[in-house]
Amino acid sequence: MKPLNVVLIGAGNVAFHIGKALHQKGHSITQVYSKTKANADSLAKMLGADAIDSLEEISKDQDFYLIAIKDDYIHEVGDAVQLHDKMVAHTSGSIPLDALSKISENTGVFYPLQTFSKSKELEMKKVPFCIEGKNESSTVFFMELAKNLSDSVQAVDSATRKKIHLAAVFACNFSNHLYAIAEELLEKDGLSLDLLRPLMEETTKKALNNSPAVVQTGPAKRKDEEVMKSHEVLLSDREDLRELYSLLSESILKKQN
Amino acid sequence: MKPLNVVLIGAGNVAFHIGKALHQKGHSITQVYSKTKANADSLAKMLGADAIDSLEEISKDQDFYLIAIKDDYIHEVGDAVQLHDKMVAHTSGSIPLDALSKISENTGVFYPLQTFSKSKELEMKKVPFCIEGKNESSTVFFMELAKNLSDSVQAVDSATRKKIHLAAVFACNFSNHLYAIAEELLEKDGLSLDLLRPLMEETTKKALNNSPAVVQTGPAKRKDEEVMKSHEVLLSDREDLRELYSLLSESILKKQN
Repeated sequence: MKPLNVVLIGAGNVAFHIGKALHQKGHSITQVYSKTKANADSLAKMLGADAIDSLEEISKDQDFYLIAIKDDYIHEVGDAVQLHDKMVAHTSGSIPLDALSKISENTGVFYPLQTFSKSKELEMKKVPFCIEGKNESSTVFFMELAKNLSDSVQAVDSATRKKIHLAAVFACNFSNHLYAIAEELLEKDGLSLDLLRPLMEETTKKALNNSPAVVQTGPAKRKDEEVMKSHEVLLSDREDLRELYSLLSESILKKQN
Repeated sequence: MKPLNVVLIGAGNVAFHIGKALHQKGHSITQVYSKTKANADSLAKMLGADAIDSLEEISKDQDFYLIAIKDDYIHEVGDAVQLHDKMVAHTSGSIPLDALSKISENTGVFYPLQTFSKSKELEMKKVPFCIEGKNESSTVFFMELAKNLSDSVQAVDSATRKKIHLAAVFACNFSNHLYAIAEELLEKDGLSLDLLRPLMEETTKKALNNSPAVVQTGPAKRKDEEVMKSHEVLLSDREDLRELYSLLSESILKKQN
């Protein structure tokens, strides 16, 4: 696609990685906005853009405005800035498109299903993008732009995006919390999570290459009542974890039998 | 260490991988037992051993007997076979050492903290082994043998092993079940888990390289009540999953704040 002039509203992890990817594809990042000037400065410097820390400084005649900021502020920015018919998209999994109803006629969602860290390189080509546009021309524009960055792009409406986000909470946020619980349990006995890291890695690899339900293992899967009971006894001083153990085991028993 | 004559009692995934690793280290696998002759045959053939399907055929004068069978049968084999003072170990995370109290004077646990599949190569050097011996000479023997196979070996008593196993259930069995729930939620809407696989992979990588609690993300972590409420509404037709969502979110709120 033809090179675009792009304004990044936000200078966090998502803005960093998408900004870099757009830059590498030949688009020009002209401005980087952050309410924290130092953050705008460092990303702008990397991308050859101007750093700004006031929404009023946003240039009105660019081709694409990417809003990659905390969910809580998307409404606020959407209400404060007026870009007429320019292409404007936010990157959030859980904020509906209509949060941008005032900012422009041509709005959309540009939601990368990935977790980003500035310190970690990432292959943008493999990141799934969920795209939504307010009308046909914006949908076509955002789809084309996403396909410029990634091989895995699909049109997803706000209702479906919310369901995907819910599934991601189960698969990723909640799984990570279970890792954190395992670490807490081990450290209580002077042991390290390092003992489990090879098993965690292998378990996820198996789930990535199979239907997870098919590769389920453990005491609940094999209906080992004795082991489950003894585990609950071990958790008798942690009622919250005992309840979680019991509910997760029941859920496995129900799904697997 | 000097080459041993080893009998494998069991021909499943664990016997397959540990048997292969022992063979590669120059030990002789002399017999492979399985109650299903075909399974004994195929592993025995690979290792240059004799296949047997009756416990009575087990040779009494070998150096090491590894019991790698389903948890439910360990007691049974331990009671049925008599090997006097030979070195005998089982490979289970949840069965106590005293399940082997009748089979020999020199018993132990040889517990690899890993999930094995016959079809998948695995670097045994990196598998953590938890070792327990009934007395000093058996502990020394099993520790030395485990160190022959792996760089990550530690002595762990039955009580501690049970706690490690509990932590593994949280980190691995339960995480996998959350992946399975995510798949179920997506498929209900005609979507594929493939959408989430890159995110699942990256989330686990982050947890492997950090303390998982430090890299926690998601609505509960940022106390986003609105998103959590809307997710629970989406689960209103699945009371079991709604309850799980609520309990896991509460657990994150508690740990992270």
